Amino acid sequence: MTTIPGSTPWTATGVARLGDGELARVDAWWRAANYLSVGQIYLLGNPLLREPLRREHVKPRLLGHWGTTPGLTFLYAHLNRAIRARSQPTLYVTGPGHGGPGLVASAYLDGTYSEIYSDITRDAEGVRRLFRQFSFPGGVPSHVAPETPGSIHEGGELGYALSHAYGAAFDNPGLLVAAVVGDGEAETGPLATSWHSNKLLNPHQDGVVLPILHLNGYKIANPAILARIPQAELGALLAGYGHKPYFFEVPDDSDEPPLVTHRRFAGLLDEVLDDIAEIKARAARTPSAAVDRPVWPMIVFRTPKGWTGPAVVDGKKTTGSWRAHQVPLASARDTPEHLRVLEEWLRSYRPQELFDDDGAVRAEITGLAPAGDLRMSATPYANGGLLLRDLRLPDFREFAADVPAPGGSTSEAPRVLGQWLTDVIRQNPGNFRIFGPDETASNRLQAVYDATGKQWNAELYGPDVDEHLVRTGRVMEMLSEHQCQGWLEGYLLTGRHGLFTSYEAFVHIIDSMFNQHAKWLKVTNDIPWRRPIASLNYLLSSHVWRQDHNGFSHQDPGFIDHVVNKKAEIVRVYLPPDANTLLSTYDHCLRSRQYVNVVVAGKQPAPNWLAMPEAIEHCTRGLGIWEWAGTEVPGEKPDVVLAAAGDVPTLEVLAAADILRRELPDLKVRVINVVDLMRLQDAGEHPHGLTDPEFDGLFTADRPIIFAYHGYPWLIHRLTYRRAGHPNLHARGYKEEGTTTTPFDMVMLNDLDRYHLVIDVVDRVPGLGPAQAGLRQRMQDARLRARAWTREHGEDIPEVRDWVWPASDSPGRPAAPTLPDTSADNE
Amino acid sequence: MTTIPGSTPWTATGVARLGDGELARVDAWWRAANYLSVGQIYLLGNPLLREPLRREHVKPRLLGHWGTTPGLTFLYAHLNRAIRARSQPTLYVTGPGHGGPGLVASAYLDGTYSEIYSDITRDAEGVRRLFRQFSFPGGVPSHVAPETPGSIHEGGELGYALSHAYGAAFDNPGLLVAAVVGDGEAETGPLATSWHSNKLLNPHQDGVVLPILHLNGYKIANPAILARIPQAELGALLAGYGHKPYFFEVPDDSDEPPLVTHRRFAGLLDEVLDDIAEIKARAARTPSAAVDRPVWPMIVFRTPKGWTGPAVVDGKKTTGSWRAHQVPLASARDTPEHLRVLEEWLRSYRPQELFDDDGAVRAEITGLAPAGDLRMSATPYANGGLLLRDLRLPDFREFAADVPAPGGSTSEAPRVLGQWLTDVIRQNPGNFRIFGPDETASNRLQAVYDATGKQWNAELYGPDVDEHLVRTGRVMEMLSEHQCQGWLEGYLLTGRHGLFTSYEAFVHIIDSMFNQHAKWLKVTNDIPWRRPIASLNYLLSSHVWRQDHNGFSHQDPGFIDHVVNKKAEIVRVYLPPDANTLLSTYDHCLRSRQYVNVVVAGKQPAPNWLAMPEAIEHCTRGLGIWEWAGTEVPGEKPDVVLAAAGDVPTLEVLAAADILRRELPDLKVRVINVVDLMRLQDAGEHPHGLTDPEFDGLFTADRPIIFAYHGYPWLIHRLTYRRAGHPNLHARGYKEEGTTTTPFDMVMLNDLDRYHLVIDVVDRVPGLGPAQAGLRQRMQDARLRARAWTREHGEDIPEVRDWVWPASDSPGRPAAPTLPDTSADNE
Repeated sequence: MTTIPGSTPWTATGVARLGDGELARVDAWWRAANYLSVGQIYLLGNPLLREPLRREHVKPRLLGHWGTTPGLTFLYAHLNRAIRARSQPTLYVTGPGHGGPGLVASAYLDGTYSEIYSDITRDAEGVRRLFRQFSFPGGVPSHVAPETPGSIHEGGELGYALSHAYGAAFDNPGLLVAAVVGDGEAETGPLATSWHSNKLLNPHQDGVVLPILHLNGYKIANPAILARIPQAELGALLAGYGHKPYFFEVPDDSDEPPLVTHRRFAGLLDEVLDDIAEIKARAARTPSAAVDRPVWPMIVFRTPKGWTGPAVVDGKKTTGSWRAHQVPLASARDTPEHLRVLEEWLRSYRPQELFDDDGAVRAEITGLAPAGDLRMSATPYANGGLLLRDLRLPDFREFAADVPAPGGSTSEAPRVLGQWLTDVIRQNPGNFRIFGPDETASNRLQAVYDATGKQWNAELYGPDVDEHLVRTGRVMEMLSEHQCQGWLEGYLLTGRHGLFTSYEAFVHIIDSMFNQHAKWLKVTNDIPWRRPIASLNYLLSSHVWRQDHNGFSHQDPGFIDHVVNKKAEIVRVYLPPDANTLLSTYDHCLRSRQYVNVVVAGKQPAPNWLAMPEAIEHCTRGLGIWEWAGTEVPGEKPDVVLAAAGDVPTLEVLAAADILRRELPDLKVRVINVVDLMRLQDAGEHPHGLTDPEFDGLFTADRPIIFAYHGYPWLIHRLTYRRAGHPNLHARGYKEEGTTTTPFDMVMLNDLDRYHLVIDVVDRVPGLGPAQAGLRQRMQDARLRARAWTREHGEDIPEVRDWVWPASDSPGRPAAPTLPDTSADNE
Repeated sequence: MTTIPGSTPWTATGVARLGDGELARVDAWWRAANYLSVGQIYLLGNPLLREPLRREHVKPRLLGHWGTTPGLTFLYAHLNRAIRARSQPTLYVTGPGHGGPGLVASAYLDGTYSEIYSDITRDAEGVRRLFRQFSFPGGVPSHVAPETPGSIHEGGELGYALSHAYGAAFDNPGLLVAAVVGDGEAETGPLATSWHSNKLLNPHQDGVVLPILHLNGYKIANPAILARIPQAELGALLAGYGHKPYFFEVPDDSDEPPLVTHRRFAGLLDEVLDDIAEIKARAARTPSAAVDRPVWPMIVFRTPKGWTGPAVVDGKKTTGSWRAHQVPLASARDTPEHLRVLEEWLRSYRPQELFDDDGAVRAEITGLAPAGDLRMSATPYANGGLLLRDLRLPDFREFAADVPAPGGSTSEAPRVLGQWLTDVIRQNPGNFRIFGPDETASNRLQAVYDATGKQWNAELYGPDVDEHLVRTGRVMEMLSEHQCQGWLEGYLLTGRHGLFTSYEAFVHIIDSMFNQHAKWLKVTNDIPWRRPIASLNYLLSSHVWRQDHNGFSHQDPGFIDHVVNKKAEIVRVYLPPDANTLLSTYDHCLRSRQYVNVVVAGKQPAPNWLAMPEAIEHCTRGLGIWEWAGTEVPGEKPDVVLAAAGDVPTLEVLAAADILRRELPDLKVRVINVVDLMRLQDAGEHPHGLTDPEFDGLFTADRPIIFAYHGYPWLIHRLTYRRAGHPNLHARGYKEEGTTTTPFDMVMLNDLDRYHLVIDVVDRVPGLGPAQAGLRQRMQDARLRARAWTREHGEDIPEVRDWVWPASDSPGRPAAPTLPDTSADNE
């Protein structure tokens, strides 16, 4: 836990008896923030309105979103007051991230902005620059973005405010996360389920999320659903989510004096924060393992969309309607009337009261903000790299699977990984978590339950059914990939470590979330004040090739394709072929920063190929020749290259190599295994990419390459199309061919099996085809026999199921039983 | 509306006074369904248990899921009784689709299965085959699947039961959709928000969804959250969703006699259905435009997981725990004790009472089912192609944009499409809907509001803010891509037509749903009794190149990459370059069957290139040479090929061609435009693919090809890597380069702009480079000038913004102002 100097979390103050002066200061802050927001959207010049507004002061292209902004600035202003009163470390999560100007304005007011961006000074020229840069070529984005201090949340794509907020709160017991949820966002699926995060939050050990449902009533062109159901129904819904809702409302046609409105909200906020303080105090008196789920407060903040904006534009109701969503005066430059409306709107905030003679916001206004790191824009929780500590990683070599010889032992690779992770958890009790949609054990990581449990703050029924469920644990499981991804993102962005284990097919559910996180990382790489955070690590263990229970719906290896569309500097894809390479890979992943690491490793029992020293060497190279598996002659070029990426393809390639060394002992076969998929790409395209001479040295420029790949085969072509040897490369992989229920039948269905790979060799090595028609025929017969056996017996044919890599690796020895020559049977 | 013969929807019966005989029949059906389910999972032989169970009777690999099955069969049995009593057309949506055996068993009992699959006869041999085929090589999937009669819903990926159910209910006023929602599924985001679908359902014009929350308490390895909150909290949640929950509970340790349990549930179901009948009767007395949202009933069905299975296995509680999720006796063959448990379990259903001497289920049991198409497994609503009628499509030629010459007019292409869609809606008032996440107007389809409105059954505030909101309308908007996709899928799968318009970047939110729908279509293509359904049509109008308001988070053209991973027979991708090609494309899409059509077309004002006759010809070819744009000499090979796919790339390619014809009038430039992206692929890979001679004839085998593409450029390489001309192909596209706020700055950022394309030509046409260093320099200067202008003025430089294709197409004419030679300035 990190403590902000001077902070005293969870102080109860009672409802403060605020004088009109303090309320006027809150109001002035709010007016200043709104003025600065409108200025960002509209103004190029005349920033302090010290002369009449003219056409040339207005930006030629008006871009941005006003509608949600005044609500965001109102909340920010009031939180400032409360944080100061309570010294409460607070992270502000802006669900309606479209309201970017409001957060930039707030950061400018509390001083953070000028500290970070020294050219945006606290004077008239700084205000001019602040306005000009907004959504302007070469300037800053219109949304809350990585460039915005105080943010861990972009808000361009909606749905993740609460899961990010909870991710930030886990293991930060002193942190309040004020999470504003837009009523548009509230309609998304991910947001709708994220309310239930409170069943997995421990009141003792974790921080507090205060959801603020920003019910401004409208989206782009429609009302919001939650704004159009009876209040009793809304109240029931929120109570059903496990919250005590506090309702705050300002109607569209309110003529309530601003100070009265501020007094009402300040009082409500104090009540809510005292309620939280009491819950925390109660939890503090209880061991974290015994604390029950409280009913957490939340706020329903029903205020007009575009609040304080022009009531009517061109005769149409604007404030309090969807018309205020984006830029209410889209043609502000075009008519004197529009220009007048804009000027009146800006002047309604009384800028003459807000700025001093230099154009700096008056100190009595900026003084509303708390000091230093307690400022929400300056909180280190929003710049997680500041808080990040390296994991204490146990030596993974000590967890190695024993591999006396290639294929000489068998492991479920993730189970081996799980043993190491158990020690990772033991050594890092406060900053490492595993997230998964009810699949941690299914994905064979259950060893971790020796060290921890699954955090669960809903009802417990007893040990006979609630195995490993505990009030505080390192494993977070809920049947929602969105939740797992969102929690993990929030956890990482606030400076911790973790991994997400998912079925390979269903990780597509968070394709779009991955996009946003990758974009966030890409942008932060270019922002000096943003410090690197831990990588987002995936472990996809229930993969396409072994969906025996579930079939076709559970088969999709395309997440890799999706991932490699993002910037090469961000993404890494690993396909360790066995347990020790998985260990070595994951050790690397947990040490890395600013990446998304995708690791695919099957959970079914499979042969181990490499002892740990070789595994480390292989992973360090990322790919390499497995000399023990091939039949090369030193100093001579191979006749054919058999390459594999992925555990199942590796098995089939080795089985094919075994057949070839028995059937065609003179054929010079090179076997290559690829762990780090990005090594295939050009050095110019990806930092891990091989140079052309390196690639050609491995794969040759002129010999047939048969590439057995875990996923859709065309990705291999995409990664290698510029290589000299590409015209000779033939890739096999998954082809959406439907379902089957035994492992070998599945690879046969996609022509990735050992027999078909041998046929590929026969067909592609010059001169081999005509001479080896008999071998080709026997391979086809072996396939037919395997299929027929499976259909009769319901399991794979023993010659496949029981195949092992021969103990001796000298080529040409008789080893495994030779395939019977059944070609005659078919004639 | 389709009427099932003999159906009388919404009959109120009161709570039936059922005799023990009828209840015993329900119980016998349930026992039979459970017996047949367990048999499918475990048995290879001895199907009727007419001899003692031996090891060889049990399957060697036990695959499938038992846990949810007995609940599904219980509900199915009771719905049978109620449907018979009420003649109520009913569609059963199995959210927990893992419980496949239960639905196959039910379809077998009501006779549908044997009608469709004639080898699964209604006798002992049929039962044996039924058991053997389940999750067996060459057999049927373990989930509810396309192969399962009565299903429109796979349930392998969880989250979409309610959105599918509502999609089925829209415009089917006589249809009851009984939608079983698993408590695991209930944790997913998409499901959590889909409860709110009831705010967009019209009680008069649409059917009824009856959600049944199947609270069996456990997922794979964890309790379900909704099963572990207080009942009052759960009740509040469901009331908050707008439902009246009816609670039904059978505790784990219940010793209630089965007939009592059945009597309780039958009474509850009658109450619920009468409640619905009353709501429908009330709605029928009200015009659909005036009917308000009722509080719909729903059922909370809290029963033990694995109900009726073995209570304890190996000393561990099994029934009533997550251990019952998959195969409770995973090693049933391995020990005599396990075999005994399995035999006892099977015999507990009293098979001797269920089957007659031939092994047919006794007629008094099967007689519980309603007759003919009222059987849930036989309902035509679950085989939408049976109900599908062609759309009446207005002649799109009459809606053509006027294009006096290439570039001679400007349109927002979707706005033109919207005018045609308005007529589509008028002519098809009951079987066509448009779905979108609050973006129909943003995507410029607002003309449709001349013919219809947005369906909205939540509160209305009045016309000043509720534009186009109506109680029944053809446009369905909710801020959830999951909902839009799920509703549309349900609508299509029950035999109607529609389209989904989304921002291009955020359609990734439904990547995984698209996967499942594409898989469904692929499998149904091979199922003769499944009739073709209308294609799923996307319109992605807010695309990557024009996110001026929203920036980097809204930029992702990768949905196309995702889509082309699925079977070629299913997917189509269109990139119409202007309004008339968009019209022609969409006419084709709305006529098509069994495809997923992805259409990307920008919404910003853009030049029209083709008059309608040329547009039709171009779209029919899918791609072609635009002779008017190039400078080819008849009978001679071009020096370079400039190709474009997408509207923005087309504009830039044409502007580049314009520069080239002025700057290098002797250069023979071929301009190709691609509408149908799949034409690029090999004929062997995609049905639309060009043959090699066709491709070579267009693109040449040996001339430089500069390809400006809408999306990630490597997709073009992936699609063309086998072509002879591929080594000469250079693709430009989107590169995740970050954000900018003016259109031309955006294309420059990604090197897709006209100036860079000219540089590409100079660099790649042999001999041109050295000779044209001056042109190259001027192009670079033009870029720098354009960038500097944008940064100063906040909009694009006039020479770009105001560029138009020259009126005359004779090469070499002076046309647009020549670029000033500024190369000296830089020296």
